[in-house]
Amino acid sequence: MVTGRQAIYLDYNASAPLLDEARAAMLAALDIDANPSSVHQAGRAAKAIVQKARRSVAALVNTKPDHVVFTSGATEAAATLLTPHYSFGRSPLVFSKLYVCAADHPCVLAGGRFAPENVVRLPVTGSGLLDLDALEKALAGHDKGAGLPLVAVHWANNETGVIQPIRDIAALVKKQGGVLVVDAVQALGRIPIDISNGCGDFFILSSHKIGGPKGAGTVVAHSDLMMPMPLISGGGQERGHRGGTEAVANIAGFGAAAEAALHNLARFGECAAVRDAFESAILDVAPDAVIHGCDVERLANTLFFTIPGVKAETAQIAFDLAGIAVSSGSACSSGKVGKSHVLTAMGAKAEEGAIRVSFGLETGISATDRFRAELEKIVARARPKNRLEKA
Amino acid sequence: MVTGRQAIYLDYNASAPLLDEARAAMLAALDIDANPSSVHQAGRAAKAIVQKARRSVAALVNTKPDHVVFTSGATEAAATLLTPHYSFGRSPLVFSKLYVCAADHPCVLAGGRFAPENVVRLPVTGSGLLDLDALEKALAGHDKGAGLPLVAVHWANNETGVIQPIRDIAALVKKQGGVLVVDAVQALGRIPIDISNGCGDFFILSSHKIGGPKGAGTVVAHSDLMMPMPLISGGGQERGHRGGTEAVANIAGFGAAAEAALHNLARFGECAAVRDAFESAILDVAPDAVIHGCDVERLANTLFFTIPGVKAETAQIAFDLAGIAVSSGSACSSGKVGKSHVLTAMGAKAEEGAIRVSFGLETGISATDRFRAELEKIVARARPKNRLEKA
Repeated sequence: MVTGRQAIYLDYNASAPLLDEARAAMLAALDIDANPSSVHQAGRAAKAIVQKARRSVAALVNTKPDHVVFTSGATEAAATLLTPHYSFGRSPLVFSKLYVCAADHPCVLAGGRFAPENVVRLPVTGSGLLDLDALEKALAGHDKGAGLPLVAVHWANNETGVIQPIRDIAALVKKQGGVLVVDAVQALGRIPIDISNGCGDFFILSSHKIGGPKGAGTVVAHSDLMMPMPLISGGGQERGHRGGTEAVANIAGFGAAAEAALHNLARFGECAAVRDAFESAILDVAPDAVIHGCDVERLANTLFFTIPGVKAETAQIAFDLAGIAVSSGSACSSGKVGKSHVLTAMGAKAEEGAIRVSFGLETGISATDRFRAELEKIVARARPKNRLEKA
Repeated sequence: MVTGRQAIYLDYNASAPLLDEARAAMLAALDIDANPSSVHQAGRAAKAIVQKARRSVAALVNTKPDHVVFTSGATEAAATLLTPHYSFGRSPLVFSKLYVCAADHPCVLAGGRFAPENVVRLPVTGSGLLDLDALEKALAGHDKGAGLPLVAVHWANNETGVIQPIRDIAALVKKQGGVLVVDAVQALGRIPIDISNGCGDFFILSSHKIGGPKGAGTVVAHSDLMMPMPLISGGGQERGHRGGTEAVANIAGFGAAAEAALHNLARFGECAAVRDAFESAILDVAPDAVIHGCDVERLANTLFFTIPGVKAETAQIAFDLAGIAVSSGSACSSGKVGKSHVLTAMGAKAEEGAIRVSFGLETGISATDRFRAELEKIVARARPKNRLEKA
């Protein structure tokens, strides 16, 4: 039987389970009949919910509520920000090229409203870090006569958990007169984000990776002055930056999840003990396993590994049958299974693909025992000879 | 105190209260941890919810589920459809001009991805109907060398409830070799919509006007062949037509609301008795009141009126204080209060603005008594002399 709750859910980077606080906030919001743009009492109540959530999201990244524009999710936020056309105060501002990181999320790689020929992919190192020399060289060679350079980079990678040196990147982009869009979706709630502190100009956030509902995200701007041309225009909502009736319940859930994330942020590092236990189990069962990005700073909740001779797709299915939800690569692309573009960008040898384990603060150490027991069976089936040798 | 539930809620055209069926479907969806694109059991459970909703929405407008693309709402759907760039099979298709109706919703008037100079506004009659002669003339004069004409018209008006002769419009557009986008947001669930039956090429639908949650809508295509260039690209969701993790709970609620709407469609006309009672009350209290669009076919749940000498904004506030939620003009535009562009387009004399009463099947006839009692006070305060004369 297909069920929505699996015994051991280790796919938080695809979507985290809804937090109780988020659910409660959503239920309260669903009792508001009105449109937040309506001026009557019910409308004002709906508006108040949106504004409370705006304050909560702003607090999580240390900015002003007015710098938060709600969208339907991170993908819409990326499509909004990745455009050649911005306004700076009342003047138009044009970006002639978009520089992305080869290990960025597909919604960033898609390049938004830039013509494909104006999107430049920058390489990453074997560890998955953006190649800063390549970035500097690209920006130094950028022709500013045609327009400014726009750079988009993820803060933490959704597959490997690798954390980019975002302050260094921001400093470099600034020095070269560019503007930096940071996809902070996987970093949010997992490492401290203080956008007032030199780590980029715009930030993409998502609700459902931090325990809020699917269907909410934001564009967060570092300042008041510069904004992208709206992607969706209509009734003037979100101070004209994003039209359409607000998804009030989703936004309420996002706000509540942001509050919880801020509250739990200092504790998130505790996940590292569980991750290390997963890692030990993997290396114990298969000493030749490769942990991708393990030589650089990673999120405490994410582990991406390849076991030679064990097809990731097959392993994922076996885990699934055993009630353990992991992913092989990222979740998007509607069930498409292909080689991870992140591993390709890292130049990793991983013909078998890779398994991603991602979890949350609620995930207890006991999950690692069940995971290990299943992994032993999977590896034994896939490479019985090795198994015998080991015994 | 500001509350989200008002004693008498008469603002359904801004947002209808959430149906119990929709709430139940949302709650079930919120228990699914996963991303619908994930291939494990939890992911497949999430996907199954989205697909069930797709079937329900398709059934409400009599089309195939594959012709339904979920968006974050009607405004995003409009921004998606109103673009010069479509594909027809594997070939690109270009529209050089967009023809809109002056009484369309602001998100249609915004023109989507068309340059403002390529958006042509067509006039409406004094009753609010699209001027078919003007449409025919505009399309006959359209220069097809530069591209095809795209026409966008609302089926039912959100302010007046006036129903456009959509089949005549569709026939005319087809005859002239154009493509018709129909904003069916206010018509959905209120009049029968059978998109297989010559009423346009694309349809914009919204969840929260039929008792689903805010934050879901669709692009519905009449055929398989022609589709707009995606507005939001990312992980290939919605068969490549709309990227981003699906707002599963919202979509589930939308689907449940669509099922309920289909079930109740035949009964919706019963609203006319309540509307007529509102209308009688208004004309009894103020015999000189003007009911906008009353000489043509209107939605059974909508009433838009002006009472000479009674400022709509003031009346709306007085109703609100008495616990009756009505609107003065449409709800969007973030509380902006200005003259209705619909009334302007109709050439209506309504310096005082107008009050919109819109409701649902649940609204009992007793609401009209409370409304009348309050209206009497409002009119007496605004024009005491008339009141005396009447007495």
